Amino acid sequence: MSSSISDLLASKTLDLEPYEQLYKHYHSHPELSNQEKETAATTAKHLSKLADFKITTGIGGHGFAGVLHNGSGPTVLLRADMDALPVKELTNLPYASTVTQVSERTGEESPVMHACGHDMHITCLLAAAEHLYALRSSWSGTLVVLFQPAEERGTGAQAMVDDGLYDKEKHNIPVPDYVLGQHVMALPAGKIGSRVGTIMAAADSFKVTVFGRGGHGSMPHRTIDPVMMASNIVVRLQNIVSRETDPSDMAVVTVGYLRGGHTENIIVDHAELGIDIRTINTATRERVIASLKRIVHAEYIASGAEKEPTIEETRFFPQTYNDEDMEGKLAGSFGEFFGEAFDPQIARTNASEDVSILASSQGKPSLFWFFGGTEPEFYAQKEREGRLIEDIPQNHSSGFAPVIQPTLKIGVDALCVAALTFLTRK
Amino acid sequence: MSSSISDLLASKTLDLEPYEQLYKHYHSHPELSNQEKETAATTAKHLSKLADFKITTGIGGHGFAGVLHNGSGPTVLLRADMDALPVKELTNLPYASTVTQVSERTGEESPVMHACGHDMHITCLLAAAEHLYALRSSWSGTLVVLFQPAEERGTGAQAMVDDGLYDKEKHNIPVPDYVLGQHVMALPAGKIGSRVGTIMAAADSFKVTVFGRGGHGSMPHRTIDPVMMASNIVVRLQNIVSRETDPSDMAVVTVGYLRGGHTENIIVDHAELGIDIRTINTATRERVIASLKRIVHAEYIASGAEKEPTIEETRFFPQTYNDEDMEGKLAGSFGEFFGEAFDPQIARTNASEDVSILASSQGKPSLFWFFGGTEPEFYAQKEREGRLIEDIPQNHSSGFAPVIQPTLKIGVDALCVAALTFLTRK
Amino acid sequence: MSSSISDLLASKTLDLEPYEQLYKHYHSHPELSNQEKETAATTAKHLSKLADFKITTGIGGHGFAGVLHNGSGPTVLLRADMDALPVKELTNLPYASTVTQVSERTGEESPVMHACGHDMHITCLLAAAEHLYALRSSWSGTLVVLFQPAEERGTGAQAMVDDGLYDKEKHNIPVPDYVLGQHVMALPAGKIGSRVGTIMAAADSFKVTVFGRGGHGSMPHRTIDPVMMASNIVVRLQNIVSRETDPSDMAVVTVGYLRGGHTENIIVDHAELGIDIRTINTATRERVIASLKRIVHAEYIASGAEKEPTIEETRFFPQTYNDEDMEGKLAGSFGEFFGEAFDPQIARTNASEDVSILASSQGKPSLFWFFGGTEPEFYAQKEREGRLIEDIPQNHSSGFAPVIQPTLKIGVDALCVAALTFLTRK
Amino acid sequence: MSSSISDLLASKTLDLEPYEQLYKHYHSHPELSNQEKETAATTAKHLSKLADFKITTGIGGHGFAGVLHNGSGPTVLLRADMDALPVKELTNLPYASTVTQVSERTGEESPVMHACGHDMHITCLLAAAEHLYALRSSWSGTLVVLFQPAEERGTGAQAMVDDGLYDKEKHNIPVPDYVLGQHVMALPAGKIGSRVGTIMAAADSFKVTVFGRGGHGSMPHRTIDPVMMASNIVVRLQNIVSRETDPSDMAVVTVGYLRGGHTENIIVDHAELGIDIRTINTATRERVIASLKRIVHAEYIASGAEKEPTIEETRFFPQTYNDEDMEGKLAGSFGEFFGEAFDPQIARTNASEDVSILASSQGKPSLFWFFGGTEPEFYAQKEREGRLIEDIPQNHSSGFAPVIQPTLKIGVDALCVAALTFLTRK
Repeated sequence: MSSSISDLLASKTLDLEPYEQLYKHYHSHPELSNQEKETAATTAKHLSKLADFKITTGIGGHGFAGVLHNGSGPTVLLRADMDALPVKELTNLPYASTVTQVSERTGEESPVMHACGHDMHITCLLAAAEHLYALRSSWSGTLVVLFQPAEERGTGAQAMVDDGLYDKEKHNIPVPDYVLGQHVMALPAGKIGSRVGTIMAAADSFKVTVFGRGGHGSMPHRTIDPVMMASNIVVRLQNIVSRETDPSDMAVVTVGYLRGGHTENIIVDHAELGIDIRTINTATRERVIASLKRIVHAEYIASGAEKEPTIEETRFFPQTYNDEDMEGKLAGSFGEFFGEAFDPQIARTNASEDVSILASSQGKPSLFWFFGGTEPEFYAQKEREGRLIEDIPQNHSSGFAPVIQPTLKIGVDALCVAALTFLTRK
Repeated sequence: MSSSISDLLASKTLDLEPYEQLYKHYHSHPELSNQEKETAATTAKHLSKLADFKITTGIGGHGFAGVLHNGSGPTVLLRADMDALPVKELTNLPYASTVTQVSERTGEESPVMHACGHDMHITCLLAAAEHLYALRSSWSGTLVVLFQPAEERGTGAQAMVDDGLYDKEKHNIPVPDYVLGQHVMALPAGKIGSRVGTIMAAADSFKVTVFGRGGHGSMPHRTIDPVMMASNIVVRLQNIVSRETDPSDMAVVTVGYLRGGHTENIIVDHAELGIDIRTINTATRERVIASLKRIVHAEYIASGAEKEPTIEETRFFPQTYNDEDMEGKLAGSFGEFFGEAFDPQIARTNASEDVSILASSQGKPSLFWFFGGTEPEFYAQKEREGRLIEDIPQNHSSGFAPVIQPTLKIGVDALCVAALTFLTRK
Repeated sequence: MSSSISDLLASKTLDLEPYEQLYKHYHSHPELSNQEKETAATTAKHLSKLADFKITTGIGGHGFAGVLHNGSGPTVLLRADMDALPVKELTNLPYASTVTQVSERTGEESPVMHACGHDMHITCLLAAAEHLYALRSSWSGTLVVLFQPAEERGTGAQAMVDDGLYDKEKHNIPVPDYVLGQHVMALPAGKIGSRVGTIMAAADSFKVTVFGRGGHGSMPHRTIDPVMMASNIVVRLQNIVSRETDPSDMAVVTVGYLRGGHTENIIVDHAELGIDIRTINTATRERVIASLKRIVHAEYIASGAEKEPTIEETRFFPQTYNDEDMEGKLAGSFGEFFGEAFDPQIARTNASEDVSILASSQGKPSLFWFFGGTEPEFYAQKEREGRLIEDIPQNHSSGFAPVIQPTLKIGVDALCVAALTFLTRK
Repeated sequence: MSSSISDLLASKTLDLEPYEQLYKHYHSHPELSNQEKETAATTAKHLSKLADFKITTGIGGHGFAGVLHNGSGPTVLLRADMDALPVKELTNLPYASTVTQVSERTGEESPVMHACGHDMHITCLLAAAEHLYALRSSWSGTLVVLFQPAEERGTGAQAMVDDGLYDKEKHNIPVPDYVLGQHVMALPAGKIGSRVGTIMAAADSFKVTVFGRGGHGSMPHRTIDPVMMASNIVVRLQNIVSRETDPSDMAVVTVGYLRGGHTENIIVDHAELGIDIRTINTATRERVIASLKRIVHAEYIASGAEKEPTIEETRFFPQTYNDEDMEGKLAGSFGEFFGEAFDPQIARTNASEDVSILASSQGKPSLFWFFGGTEPEFYAQKEREGRLIEDIPQNHSSGFAPVIQPTLKIGVDALCVAALTFLTRK
């Protein structure tokens, strides 16, 4: 029976050419997180061509969803994220972005680029919707296609849920039995992979402010030096990973920024640390955060400061966890459909995603996979040279842009195959 | 014979009332370092009333000097500094500054305030010039009154020397046998003090830039983390003072600022440290700077960074050192003239001055003393309460403003007594 | 065909009762590393009952091997280690050790205990030799049973090789095509497990000596403080694991001892650090050791010490790496023989072993597996209580002693199944 | 009137030759702290020749005092200390020590040497007693000569007081109005010096024990690593001196020993730090000790350890503080008697003494001075070479031994002049 997915997909041709054009449009019109207004409008308009999809817009900002009720059976949600990044594009592509935008969050103007491939995600999902719509007589169940804002800030999925995405009194989108999502990565185009368990790490960001007592640099004894306190904390934090974490487990504690003081000879009264934590186990995550708090508090005690430091969580992504049961089924479908191109044990990444909130908030399982976007021969050459990391533009870099094909085709097929794995096939 | 200085000064009355007005004018018209244009013009104009002073302007910026040749004998140079600070005045005085100025150095506009008392120094020196001029028949020698720019940046004295202050082909100011200067401090008004040896510390400022390799916070192993490097340096630097410096000597190493990174999850490629060093012995200064360089270099090695850190000296004040011989003579004069109000063993301060460059650059000795500007009863009360540091506005603070009298009178008398100590009295 | 191993083993009964007695004998007569004289003699005597085994003793100390040439086919080497530990037994078992021994290495007398289960390894291998001997008509090839000294010091396997184990002119033991070994662990008795790739970590031990300059504690500036240097190194070393190691890889850097100074007020002239490193990848191991050297050297530079620190490798265990091909075959046999009791993806341990040297020194592959020794119901209860680590005596602890059955039977069967997997079965 | 002291001393000749022999006897018969049995017996026997001295022995161990009541007037106490050090003498002197002794404190045998010159102190005080006795018709008052044990441990003076030295019901030694003491130093023989205020630092020794949780070095996450904790503390302690102490004040915090762990791969459960603190102001001392406690406690918090570290004071010397009034009088006498050889502003040392307890425990003032013992020409030569510290044996070193003359004569004269300064001269 599982062979029917390949046959099914082959039974209707999908012309991807218009989607290649659409991808270029998205790529040259990126919008920052929570400012995806035109992107959402263009996408919703496109989706509205598929008459039976019921579209609800303005969910948690510019988020929206289209629902296709197609008889009895499971509800499957396919998700794409829509936001771009404050990065200046340096790809030299004919359709490169030249957009600048004033960030709603920082108030600063900056260049904007789809440097994380969300433009590809949107395009794939629209095309998959068309294809699954065309095949609707061959399956039954409910299909939800969801376009999410603000993934980069880790807030978009939660914002949609909090805004009543599944609320019967509000947007009333059917609660999915399965949530499915994908991400284009700096892997060879044509390749696709997934894994059981954690596929992307949990991420927590904190802003720590330590308070000392300012004064003149020549009289340190009249001060409590916050730059010293902050440096002591950075050094002491290393013990969390080096001594407290099971070497066979995983934790990362990065102090991304440390800001204290303005001039050489003046000791200021506070300093700020921006801390990023990655973990793949919930218990480890809790322990690492507890250790962070303990160490910051200890420096407050050691320094004799008068005011307790503040620790503010600024961003949170849960771990992206692939349900064992779902993954087993998907591996079957993908293995059959993609053959050798599919890797069922792809390496976990410590980058993070918020897609799982769309499922976990309802006590449901989710699945996530990666597909490649790097020109395969270039990748192979760099692999031979041992320069994969040095020379291949990674997500979030100013040179990141997938080759359109076969990336697009793989992404569309993957969504279709995955959806059909969990919908009821007739 | 030394009793004659008191008698001499008493022989001519100096009306200080116009100088009080002049002080208020300066206080409400502060100008930043190297921007002392109006201050210098007003001051030179005032000095020009004393016909025999030959005035040379535009030395090392807005610096200028007046020279009174008055027969054979030593050349004595009295110095005042003219620049104000980027501080918002919060004194509520009727003559408080409301001035703002765009800094030539930073390009930023800021409020400006005479928060270090240089307005008092200018006024005292003008009044002393008039008094010594009035008494010129009683002494012989050459009197130089020098008004210096940019003391706060530690560059003004050197700039005047470098611009040919003493150069026969250029400004041709006579090389002084003795350089004398003073500073108003947060001591009780009416008090005056000096000491043999170092009275103010040497100060060196450095900007250290460490270079790592940027990347994503979740993949520290692909980066060399410059915030970590900078923090390691801050912590390791403590050993210079705690372990390498003679406990009976003095050194201060302050990291006034540490700037690295912008956001929690991105590891940047460099970080900056602003370091201030205070010492009172030349050998110690050299050792501390050598240790700083060693420790920064060692962290470069420890981290495996690819680019050597840079260490740039951004400011330098030599120690202000009172010649033992001169101090002996001054202590005699001041002790006789000021009685108990004079403290010959006043505590050294770790703040810094560049006046000594006017002497040491010519191989000549100099003398420096402090005089009080805080209302005496207020000072006494705060001393009783043990809150001198907490409650009395110190130099550079937004509340610092000397009471005009007796501060002004003491400052004028001190300059006259000191000058007459080293000129030839008839 | 693979079903024949189970049938084969069942075709001859092996009476384990004498081996239970033998195990108790070994347990109550432990000997320290390189002092396994009686253990080797007893074992060789026992093995000599199997007439066709050709025994060679005194290889690399008390090591010895028995070789059974049994027709054409592969050579399979089964290995057991013989040494015990300087630990005082606290098991209250009737056959607990009361032995003390003067250590050849330290010259100190200490209690001795088979706290790592090598007594079980010896017993299992003797029993397996008997069983395989009994079955010799059903397989062909060469069987080597090897009893190794000094595993705890990481030197025994290398010593046997260096002493000419495989040298035609010396001991002339046939070079194995496959090396097989096992270790009893604090897992439930009855369970057995293995994994592809690294199953036990590489371990490197170093002694680092830093040289300062001694003096009186009240005059640190006349000294270079080696306790300070050593502490700086300990703190700086944390960056190797926390910042330089791929979070998805594994490295441990432990400073097991730091020794510097004798009395509070005297600064000594050197300090010693004992460092233990664990890794599972060769490239990571090399990088970690390089970083250690760099950091130690950097502290020498930072401190201005006159003498370069010394770094001496004191112990080395390679990683225990299970060949993918062999593991595939073994997993087949073990899966069929042990069923659910076999875990083909058992967790890697960061403890270390030197068995692989017997293979890698000849460019041959090896396989290693773990089997449980903890009473299963006790284990289950502690697992429910979440107190596995706290309450179950681990290897090297004074309470570690496997339950004799089913531990012994599993260990014997495992050796037989594994050997028969690689020998030629008729 | 003060000129009479010189005349007075000259009026009676004191033959120092027997005292030179006595000095050699003491030098070759050193005894460790609290084991000064023979030294005390020999000294008391010698003192008993001066019939009017009333001798009380066995005060606070081997301490004793002789009291000469000589009419009305002040009570002056002259003090010598008697104990030697566990140092192997390497002076090659004909009267060098070859003594070894089993330490009462450590139970270990070690060579013993008068490496701190207490033998000279005893000899000088005996000779001074004879001279002052001979002159007793020229002064009135009460003279106490006190021989103290265990100065090196900082316990002898307190032990004498605690044992009832001044207790009317116990030893009933008259409470002194003035306590006087002296120390021979590595200064040129012939030189003598003192200073107002702190002449020797306060010293506090602490043993800090941190408690972690032991385990295997490959599993740091199951442990709390006490070597890491101790190293963190050593590093964090540096802030006390570098940031918290007024640069114009003085504090030293030395970690003389750090002991943790035995072998590379085992994490132990505790580590010990031996810490020595030097200060010259009482408030600073209290603050430094409070900071030490805070920092140790903070590391306990940071590490999540289960047991609070212990901090045990192992030794305490108060600062040796010269009363301003007494010092003024002594400077007059010494200046007149010794002329240029006397330095009234000799450099403070950070070494420590417990003599002041004999005075401060009774609310009385004390005075202490240094006199030189190094051969003057050798000293001058080393001063020219800039190698005073490197080449001249300091107190406590195995090469320290004063030249007998003029050291002895200066030491005797100093005691006599000082005593006669405070006794009533007729």
